[in-house]
Amino acid sequence: MDQTSVFDFVLRKNADLVSFALGLPNPDLFPVAELTAAVDAVFKSPGDVYQYANPLEELREHIVRLMAMRGVTCAPEQIVLTNGAQHGIDMAVRLLCGSGRPIVLEEITYTGALSAVLAGDTPVHTVGTSGSLARAVAGLVGAGVRPGAMYVMPEGHNPLGVSLPGPERRALAELAREHAFTLIEDDAYGFLQYDDEPRPALRSLEDRWVFYVGSFSKVISPGLRVGWIVVPDALVDQALVVKEASTLEVATPGQHIVARLLDGWDLAAHIGVLRREYALRRDVMRRCLEEVLPAGTPFSRPDSGMFFWVELPEGVDTGELLKVAASEYGVSFVPGDLYLSGPVQAKRNYLRLSFSCVSPAEIEAGTERLGRLLRDRGIA
Amino acid sequence: MDQTSVFDFVLRKNADLVSFALGLPNPDLFPVAELTAAVDAVFKSPGDVYQYANPLEELREHIVRLMAMRGVTCAPEQIVLTNGAQHGIDMAVRLLCGSGRPIVLEEITYTGALSAVLAGDTPVHTVGTSGSLARAVAGLVGAGVRPGAMYVMPEGHNPLGVSLPGPERRALAELAREHAFTLIEDDAYGFLQYDDEPRPALRSLEDRWVFYVGSFSKVISPGLRVGWIVVPDALVDQALVVKEASTLEVATPGQHIVARLLDGWDLAAHIGVLRREYALRRDVMRRCLEEVLPAGTPFSRPDSGMFFWVELPEGVDTGELLKVAASEYGVSFVPGDLYLSGPVQAKRNYLRLSFSCVSPAEIEAGTERLGRLLRDRGIA
Repeated sequence: MDQTSVFDFVLRKNADLVSFALGLPNPDLFPVAELTAAVDAVFKSPGDVYQYANPLEELREHIVRLMAMRGVTCAPEQIVLTNGAQHGIDMAVRLLCGSGRPIVLEEITYTGALSAVLAGDTPVHTVGTSGSLARAVAGLVGAGVRPGAMYVMPEGHNPLGVSLPGPERRALAELAREHAFTLIEDDAYGFLQYDDEPRPALRSLEDRWVFYVGSFSKVISPGLRVGWIVVPDALVDQALVVKEASTLEVATPGQHIVARLLDGWDLAAHIGVLRREYALRRDVMRRCLEEVLPAGTPFSRPDSGMFFWVELPEGVDTGELLKVAASEYGVSFVPGDLYLSGPVQAKRNYLRLSFSCVSPAEIEAGTERLGRLLRDRGIA
Repeated sequence: MDQTSVFDFVLRKNADLVSFALGLPNPDLFPVAELTAAVDAVFKSPGDVYQYANPLEELREHIVRLMAMRGVTCAPEQIVLTNGAQHGIDMAVRLLCGSGRPIVLEEITYTGALSAVLAGDTPVHTVGTSGSLARAVAGLVGAGVRPGAMYVMPEGHNPLGVSLPGPERRALAELAREHAFTLIEDDAYGFLQYDDEPRPALRSLEDRWVFYVGSFSKVISPGLRVGWIVVPDALVDQALVVKEASTLEVATPGQHIVARLLDGWDLAAHIGVLRREYALRRDVMRRCLEEVLPAGTPFSRPDSGMFFWVELPEGVDTGELLKVAASEYGVSFVPGDLYLSGPVQAKRNYLRLSFSCVSPAEIEAGTERLGRLLRDRGIA
């Protein structure tokens, strides 16, 4: 099932459908009042807001402070604004995998990383997601592969719904240093950690070989399309060239709105609200899945991000299942094959469930429907 | 002189400096009152404006009508929104020059096209700008070059300040058809034509082999970063993939603001105002340059766009000249070497003058200073 037809299908207006497909942040959690005040202030004196602008220095300084919340020390000069995290990933691939240097991807990974890689001629090596990532990468370089980069999502892995354990992070950073390849750290969900003390970003362990990709999409608003990258020093100049080549600059109003919003507003407190709200939904979905999924069904227990990843028995085609789920049972999800590459590519028995845009009551209703569908189809 | 140091130099705050360097649209000509009304309407009911959005259908329909003003018949499905014209150029290069297919560039061309090409591994062939472009390209393909694309700016060429004559356009379209390469038509200045009847876009001559790049930057506001491409049918699906891979989507507020602005507003009348205002400045600069430049100095007579291109005698280094011009004479420009590639790359005796952001009085004062500098340096 290709991506467009999935989204046509699951986004179709249907009042009664519970959608676990949408991977978007919950618009009820956007800081609309504060955004409105920022918008008013920015457009009240439109002066420069309609003209091209260089990256706003105030915004880069706000980002330096945000990065400190992720355990990262950096300077404004290392920060390049982007049109959202996708733009950062694409720039990273272009910068790091020129001249035929391959990229390492997990065999189950974010569709946006796959499309950035497929948009170029970058050779791909995949590594499995079930065991140690670092061991798999060590195997590749041991076999003579010389990657330019590896794309990783240490927090809120989309779609796997897992976090990378500390020892794995240290081992990956060590491998990157030793074999001179760059880890592209997609930290779009890094602020959305739900349990214990938030783990710092991979970039906090390694400056030279980590290309950090951040975004305001999950903590403020995705529609503004404002993100950033924290670039290894050696790549700053090239990053500015590729950024200018790709879109010149981020839209001026978006830069001003975010910078104004962050002036004197307590983003940390807002992130606290987001953590509580998403954790609540995560808890409900986890409990419900434990109840409705056939005993022994492997599924993730996310402690960051927005997704559960479910492995149904071999032989189930979740693309086919979705059609019945949405049309007859009133529940939707994303079939897992969209996220696959390498040896697992033919597998059809995965699905991704998002809890971000649904209420606890909808989660209960939707998972009950999913469970009923599985029972009715004899999937156990 | 590299681009950054040029801009550091000429943008330095200096109340008395007349800048012919800035290639930006004139902010005094932005439709600020109408934009403010559109912004108010869009943010009054913020509903979806902070969320991700698919391309706004109303906006694509407005663009279909705009394209008719450029003589082009197209359907909304052929229009892909971009983060400004630069994004469109970059997407075109990525789509058309994969797998090592070369691109043809004029040896004097827009820096943004150069950087989009240099950001990849695209092989480049250059053609001269002094004679017939079509003849030069015919020579290349006759010699066995099989380009994937050629970048052209038929209107308001930046920096050359020329328009492509009708027979040249037809000959290029014919060559593209015959040799199966795509013309990337950068029409950012297509609405800014000053004399006679506006010439239609190259795309109006050829659908299959012209990839049209358009932008609201020159006619509404560059800060919003909203542009579009009109894609050959065979490339629409791939264009959507590359667009999603590069930035997912254009910022939602920008889409809504432009769509709302175009509802019921007379853009054609606004373009009429822009044409008169820029033509006035163009006329003054042309008259002044005829007076102050040494007799016989070759310079362009633009009838579209924002630029004059001047060729000083061999041996003059316009990068060195700029330092003196800005610090001692109070006038600035862009040294021409930024725009060069191929055999002319070492030439240092070109400069670009922009008339977009200066008043007629400033044009008179600035060109007088430039003339005095040339006389003082014995350049004749």
